[in-house]
Amino acid sequence: MSPENTAAELVIHAEWILPLEPADAVLADHAVAIRDGDIVSVLPRQEALAIDTDERVDLPGHALIPGLVNAHGHAPMSLLRGFADDLPLMPWLEEHIWPAEQAHASDEFVRDGAALAMAEMILAGTTTFSDMYYFPNVVADLVQEAGMRCQLAAPVLDFPSPWGSGPDEYISKCLALRDECRNRDRLQVAFGPHAPYTVSEPVLERLATYAAELDMPVHMHLHETAAEVLNAVEATGERPLDTLRRIGLLGPRTQCVHMTDLGAQDIAALAETGAHVVHCPQSNMKLASGTCPVTRLLEAGVNVALGTDGAASNNDLNLFDEMHTAALLAKLHDDDPSALPAATALHMATLGGARALGLDHRIGSIAPGKAADLVAVDLTGPSTQPLYNPVSQIVYACNGSQVNHVWIAGQRLLHDRRLTTLDLTDTLARARHWRGVIAP
Amino acid sequence: MSPENTAAELVIHAEWILPLEPADAVLADHAVAIRDGDIVSVLPRQEALAIDTDERVDLPGHALIPGLVNAHGHAPMSLLRGFADDLPLMPWLEEHIWPAEQAHASDEFVRDGAALAMAEMILAGTTTFSDMYYFPNVVADLVQEAGMRCQLAAPVLDFPSPWGSGPDEYISKCLALRDECRNRDRLQVAFGPHAPYTVSEPVLERLATYAAELDMPVHMHLHETAAEVLNAVEATGERPLDTLRRIGLLGPRTQCVHMTDLGAQDIAALAETGAHVVHCPQSNMKLASGTCPVTRLLEAGVNVALGTDGAASNNDLNLFDEMHTAALLAKLHDDDPSALPAATALHMATLGGARALGLDHRIGSIAPGKAADLVAVDLTGPSTQPLYNPVSQIVYACNGSQVNHVWIAGQRLLHDRRLTTLDLTDTLARARHWRGVIAP
Repeated sequence: MSPENTAAELVIHAEWILPLEPADAVLADHAVAIRDGDIVSVLPRQEALAIDTDERVDLPGHALIPGLVNAHGHAPMSLLRGFADDLPLMPWLEEHIWPAEQAHASDEFVRDGAALAMAEMILAGTTTFSDMYYFPNVVADLVQEAGMRCQLAAPVLDFPSPWGSGPDEYISKCLALRDECRNRDRLQVAFGPHAPYTVSEPVLERLATYAAELDMPVHMHLHETAAEVLNAVEATGERPLDTLRRIGLLGPRTQCVHMTDLGAQDIAALAETGAHVVHCPQSNMKLASGTCPVTRLLEAGVNVALGTDGAASNNDLNLFDEMHTAALLAKLHDDDPSALPAATALHMATLGGARALGLDHRIGSIAPGKAADLVAVDLTGPSTQPLYNPVSQIVYACNGSQVNHVWIAGQRLLHDRRLTTLDLTDTLARARHWRGVIAP
Repeated sequence: MSPENTAAELVIHAEWILPLEPADAVLADHAVAIRDGDIVSVLPRQEALAIDTDERVDLPGHALIPGLVNAHGHAPMSLLRGFADDLPLMPWLEEHIWPAEQAHASDEFVRDGAALAMAEMILAGTTTFSDMYYFPNVVADLVQEAGMRCQLAAPVLDFPSPWGSGPDEYISKCLALRDECRNRDRLQVAFGPHAPYTVSEPVLERLATYAAELDMPVHMHLHETAAEVLNAVEATGERPLDTLRRIGLLGPRTQCVHMTDLGAQDIAALAETGAHVVHCPQSNMKLASGTCPVTRLLEAGVNVALGTDGAASNNDLNLFDEMHTAALLAKLHDDDPSALPAATALHMATLGGARALGLDHRIGSIAPGKAADLVAVDLTGPSTQPLYNPVSQIVYACNGSQVNHVWIAGQRLLHDRRLTTLDLTDTLARARHWRGVIAP
């Protein structure tokens, strides 16, 4: 045994480990050894028993998977969960969501909504999330307190909002936040231009320049509906994706969210530039946005991540549901029951998400040198038995309530389904308070 | 207060009651009074406090809904959950499912698989299920022991199976089972002709005659895929639905399961005859079968129920997931985010299911005179807060793990998520045993 394996601060034994690298590996009766928050080795149970460790956790009947990556959301909007449903897109936005945000979005709203979202996400195995909302500085502080991992996609818009007066202020606030977060290793700041129809081309050009100079990610709603694309073509003669490419905003730092209206030329552009797609199947279905052609993207070599979107349009922040729906939707869309198999769905929710956020050197798989972001899923219950294949069970039979433990950088944030860093009672009391304020 | 309200064996107070009748009613701070297993009144909290009762249950933060009705499944196939996934339909059936059933389907397999299914269903709020599988007599005994409610759709096929040698034996066994179950008030027996392509027309004609004479329900897979319909048209010149109608098998006793390939004439035939549709959205998506046009069916006045199908093709028996998926799928299919709103999904999973099974005089809503089949859903957790509308939360944000209590005919089968009539430890041990037998 190498010296790396002889001492650890934490060793977790599980009945199955799904490391994601190598792809499709299922390690039975293995263990993960952790030191300084990082994985130092993945090894058979018997060898792991020889490691001198401060803490040893044994999880019979559990699968250990990488922490899930929710690559798109609006965490504070959890306070608007179920506030308005079953409505056409524009009345939903114009008559319900936007007025509520205009009236209530504040740093307090953002803090309380993000806390609620983080509690829900940890309880369903999400360890990293990308967040696009006003007051990202508030989310930054909360993420740090709670010990989660987050990409803050700081919003950029042409028009004023509770967070800024216009592009200049949004951009300067985003850059200031980036400086502020430089030494917080669980936070990264991205430009979050809202969409091609809310951010004009000169502003997008500036973002392209800054993103290239500063090596910053860009996170953007794109091709959410066919109508969005058609409107752009009518107004500019160009598909939004082509505009982004022409101005240099499409590349390996770009995270394109939704992408429901894609032709062969769009898929080729994504593959050629190395841009990432964030698929949000439940949101796309609920808002009748369209369908992202995931199989064709993957075949073309495009990396695809998964996102829940915000709870106002989902209405949960649960990547187990999202993996399940992604697999079912692809089969229906492709007219092929072998499309998007379970292992691919799990890849999208872990390594695919990590790659999209540019974090795959640190997270997304269970491998030595990566952070110990780990989720223990209890597969002993009646909805996950008998067990022929843990990957099938996780994608097709789990709903997140089987997540018993969650570690981020070796710190246990969920212990037997109890949150250790967030005050759930206080978080729920604040959510109830907002219910009364928003819809008295 | 009427004399009916002055004494009860059980009174349940809940923060919200969703009685389903009247449609869309949400009763805040109400209670249900139960006597002899039936609901005697639904009344405001204060009035209910005056009732003299043996037991009083107070459920702040909970919604009380009618027991969910799973209108299509194959409970014993839970032992094949995740045994084979992500495969085209025919290899899946011919190379995996059918050989496993041929090798293992026995009364012991059926008993152990059905027990597992029932545990899973009760834990997710299902109180009534329709079951189509070999050895329905075994399921009958188990259902009675566990206190659930069930329609046994006894299989009828042209060919031999572990349950019978051919149509004559299937039919006689079905009729014998019907006689046996006559005095079991939670059981009903239906003819379960498997599908138009596995049961020949003369046999279907016999079933039509018997069903009419004996007032028996008929439960059948129908129009599961476009290929099934096309094959029938090529072989017989007729769509399967037209065949059923011509021979008198399409009527208010007929439960048509799947129904993915429907034209306007098919929908009219269903409406004119009063036949019911059982929609199984997750199974249809996973097997890439097609999409049932639920909105058009409902607009035409056709009653639509929900089913999970078996765990070999779903892979869970969870009607909360199924309501959610039904709503999302309809919005995508219709290109309309207002399609199949939450209340309609809940109706399909309760009163729609009850009507399809011909049981709506006894179950499907919370109304005086109906059986006290009730489910208490805890809406206080982080995935269901804040709460603007309990119906939205139940359909779009619950996953079944919020079900804390389940009563059937006033008997509590789930108490704080503990099963009271099924031995879960033994059930899980048997499922693990079959895992070793089926895939050693």
